[in-house]
Amino acid sequence: MSQRKIVIVGGVAGGATAAARARRTDEHAEIVLFEKGPYISFANCGLPYYVGGEIGDRSALLLQTPESFRARFGVDVRVNHEVLAIDRAAKAVAVRNLETGAVSTETYTALILAPGSIPIRPPLPGIDLPNVFMVRTVPDAVAIRAFVEERQASRAVVVGAGFIGLEMVENLVNLGLGVTLVEKADQVLPPLDPEMAAFVQSTLEQMGVEVITGDGIAAFEGAERATAVRLESGRTVEGDLFVLGLGVRPDTRLAREAGLAIGPTGGIQVNERMQTSDPAIYAAGDAVETVHLVTGRPALIPLAGPANKQGRVAGANAAGDSLTFPGAIGTAIVRAGSVVAATTGLSEKAARREGLQVYTSYTLSGDHADYYPGVHELLTKLVVEEGTGRVLGAQVVGEAGVDKRTDVYATAILGGMTVEQLANLDLAYAPPFGSAKDPAVVAGMVAQNIRRGTLRTITPDRLLERLEAGEGLQVVDVRNPYEFDMGAVPGAVNIPVDELRRRIGELDPARETVVYDRTGATAYVAARMLMQRGFSVSSLTGGYALFPAAEAVRMQQLTQG
Amino acid sequence: MSQRKIVIVGGVAGGATAAARARRTDEHAEIVLFEKGPYISFANCGLPYYVGGEIGDRSALLLQTPESFRARFGVDVRVNHEVLAIDRAAKAVAVRNLETGAVSTETYTALILAPGSIPIRPPLPGIDLPNVFMVRTVPDAVAIRAFVEERQASRAVVVGAGFIGLEMVENLVNLGLGVTLVEKADQVLPPLDPEMAAFVQSTLEQMGVEVITGDGIAAFEGAERATAVRLESGRTVEGDLFVLGLGVRPDTRLAREAGLAIGPTGGIQVNERMQTSDPAIYAAGDAVETVHLVTGRPALIPLAGPANKQGRVAGANAAGDSLTFPGAIGTAIVRAGSVVAATTGLSEKAARREGLQVYTSYTLSGDHADYYPGVHELLTKLVVEEGTGRVLGAQVVGEAGVDKRTDVYATAILGGMTVEQLANLDLAYAPPFGSAKDPAVVAGMVAQNIRRGTLRTITPDRLLERLEAGEGLQVVDVRNPYEFDMGAVPGAVNIPVDELRRRIGELDPARETVVYDRTGATAYVAARMLMQRGFSVSSLTGGYALFPAAEAVRMQQLTQG
Repeated sequence: MSQRKIVIVGGVAGGATAAARARRTDEHAEIVLFEKGPYISFANCGLPYYVGGEIGDRSALLLQTPESFRARFGVDVRVNHEVLAIDRAAKAVAVRNLETGAVSTETYTALILAPGSIPIRPPLPGIDLPNVFMVRTVPDAVAIRAFVEERQASRAVVVGAGFIGLEMVENLVNLGLGVTLVEKADQVLPPLDPEMAAFVQSTLEQMGVEVITGDGIAAFEGAERATAVRLESGRTVEGDLFVLGLGVRPDTRLAREAGLAIGPTGGIQVNERMQTSDPAIYAAGDAVETVHLVTGRPALIPLAGPANKQGRVAGANAAGDSLTFPGAIGTAIVRAGSVVAATTGLSEKAARREGLQVYTSYTLSGDHADYYPGVHELLTKLVVEEGTGRVLGAQVVGEAGVDKRTDVYATAILGGMTVEQLANLDLAYAPPFGSAKDPAVVAGMVAQNIRRGTLRTITPDRLLERLEAGEGLQVVDVRNPYEFDMGAVPGAVNIPVDELRRRIGELDPARETVVYDRTGATAYVAARMLMQRGFSVSSLTGGYALFPAAEAVRMQQLTQG
Repeated sequence: MSQRKIVIVGGVAGGATAAARARRTDEHAEIVLFEKGPYISFANCGLPYYVGGEIGDRSALLLQTPESFRARFGVDVRVNHEVLAIDRAAKAVAVRNLETGAVSTETYTALILAPGSIPIRPPLPGIDLPNVFMVRTVPDAVAIRAFVEERQASRAVVVGAGFIGLEMVENLVNLGLGVTLVEKADQVLPPLDPEMAAFVQSTLEQMGVEVITGDGIAAFEGAERATAVRLESGRTVEGDLFVLGLGVRPDTRLAREAGLAIGPTGGIQVNERMQTSDPAIYAAGDAVETVHLVTGRPALIPLAGPANKQGRVAGANAAGDSLTFPGAIGTAIVRAGSVVAATTGLSEKAARREGLQVYTSYTLSGDHADYYPGVHELLTKLVVEEGTGRVLGAQVVGEAGVDKRTDVYATAILGGMTVEQLANLDLAYAPPFGSAKDPAVVAGMVAQNIRRGTLRTITPDRLLERLEAGEGLQVVDVRNPYEFDMGAVPGAVNIPVDELRRRIGELDPARETVVYDRTGATAYVAARMLMQRGFSVSSLTGGYALFPAAEAVRMQQLTQG
């Protein structure tokens, strides 16, 4: 067999990984990698932390240089080279050297496309002003940090409250700037369900961030520099700099022009081997459409984890091996000041959009043993398939231990595990690390109780609906009086759980009843007590810890509805 | 139906949980709980941290009092009451009030045994001297702390290097004491494989702890107080106080005397419903034999996590419900100073003892993105079933993130997942929390490479054996010269990986070759390069990061063998 020649388009996560794996698979292949930017294999997920200064030196962001990559892997790396077109019949690409302008042709036996994604940048007036930044490349991050330092900027506006937007908010706050966050959706962190995102929003507000949701941007004002952004509502927000985090779309230009199949979600269509509709062309990273392993349906999951795995598979197969990438479930995490929020699998709204029959449960528990110092509370929402009890999704919000439980749920989801299996997880327990009943186990147990009918729950939004409808529910707050006095569900009566047996005569067994405490744990005890004494009773899931957030979401829906 | 009467023996983890669940299951049952000690539901896992002062107030250890439990759950809690015997025909227990000495009888419709375990305390001379302590109860911990303070103790000897032994070492060191740790086995942390435990031992030694392995205790010397412990080797170790952490055995006296079936491991035999051989009697906690879910065989797993789950199931079923507890996998974790070590599922030695065909892989990776500050390295050992690729066990040692990966492996093991599934886990990544390729994903990928033959590995103990046998291996160290100069495998030649293609003529393709670097990642690149150039080559698994620990273990085996 003649020598294999592998050409790779794009040198960041997917492309660099593909090149390394291709070399390990075929020591004798010629491998050429084209990257249109000046760097390969840089840490794009680290850019916000470079802006904020936690990563002090930009060289830390450059994981490989063209020289180091060439030395280690024998790959012909050409930065500042843009691939212009693919000639599938000739198995060749046309490439422009961006430094000289010269265009040349490179043939291939296998081609790997890893062009990544294009940031969404609507063609609004003023959007090209020099202090309207994106956070996509090392030069972007360097420019933001330099601008803040040189101009002594004091006010920033971040547009888009997704993961990168929130990381930028955190880092700009750390630099001492006043920050306004603008999001078109009705909530921050749109991949999460709104009541979970409400906790993140309230943390941001406690950090002094002004949060504007339900309002998109219309134009940037200013002449040489933008001085304000005008919103769709007409409101104007002033700032010294503006950062766009509006999400990305797959960069499919090359693939599309070459006639490769594009999937229904708009990404390059590939099979499990990361092969496009042309068997000689592979693709990996943000540009491809992948399979969501919970729904089994095509999805765009433009994250670093899948990109690296896809690159490994594409590189192996392009070099003659046979690996597969089955898909992903969209696990993602973000820290914004003291709060960490994460999601894996399907959110409730995504599950319902898919037409799945699901129920949810909320649980609050300490990240480690309550009696050991430094405990922080975690709020967990599980999304569970009715009938099977399979865990389809989880969201976790808290100060510590969020990443651990998210990874446990992600593993359980990928293993097709049920809430019963979650309830029986045998996790690592010593007081600094967990509890005899870990939050993930508690979440499983509560979801199991709901599934078996041992516990009937009502979600806070359903309770609010029913209270608004004036259905005459009997709502019982089983906390202590001093907790009750600090805020309670409208119309609730207060009977502390330990007095409930004695004072049960104060309640009407004929009225449908809802009980709650702060976290749900004690309300469960009360609900069981009342249920067995003939009451028709539900426990408010998430307890009073979740209720105000749900109330705020409901309020917003009513205002805008 | 007449009123159900549930009697529970033991009020700590299993018993207290059973009582609470029984009440939630049957609001109308009479529930009586006997506890022979003065406290119920105390945090026995917190005792070492109370000794060390991290938990300042002993009231934090008392999770429930008899009064709080009675008020919340309507359970008749009787502390300082010892159950003496079970009359199965009469469905009654004989109980002694330890305060008055009075013996009475209590009938039951269902009985739950949760007597826990008995600490191993060999009948050695001097073992009953007052400054030879155990760490089983709140009074034990209070006594140790008081002794250290009042006697201004400066030297402690901890006997037994299991989990509790190591926690005591850490806490006594934190109190400023000099500590000697004595262990009869050839290694600390016997549930781990020896080369993994060697990292923990070296951390302990860096903390100033004197570690003596392979030597048991023979006698305590001294008159009113022990002043030294004499070891089986004849060696004597002086100390102001002595702490025994020799493990536990199930407390089966009551069950045995009542004629209940005892399993082959010596624990009370139960079915999945936690029912003993007498259908009216349930059992939970350290006293029962459970199923190891990897081997499917009976096992003793005296840990808090299983005890709580078993208590929940026993309580529900004794009260008329039907829950099951399928078993556990022995997940455990310990922090000893700066190092954290954990195990889940089977160790390599346990797997081989079970006759399972397994292979292992070692990987080293940062607990989060290398470019983000504060990264710590994790060493992971996977134990994988040959043929199926199923993950049977994992051990993790490092300074941070150990608990998270252990829980991911535990979940994967319980889900019956393979190394391919591990390699495709979609875990939460942002720079403070993980990497685009999380350590768990890397572990899966490496184990997958080994399984597919992409990577051939040699374990450090096998390499040592072959070097000792003088087999004429060609060992190539592909690190930088300055790393090589600081210590290397005996007889290795140094060719940095980036020079390997150029200097390949220096190697003999006819000789069997072993390559290594520090972590294994770069050696993999070199191994692939050599393999495809006709060399028969293996990569040293765990790299030079693991080698010295393995060398020390081997040395010890040779000395003692």
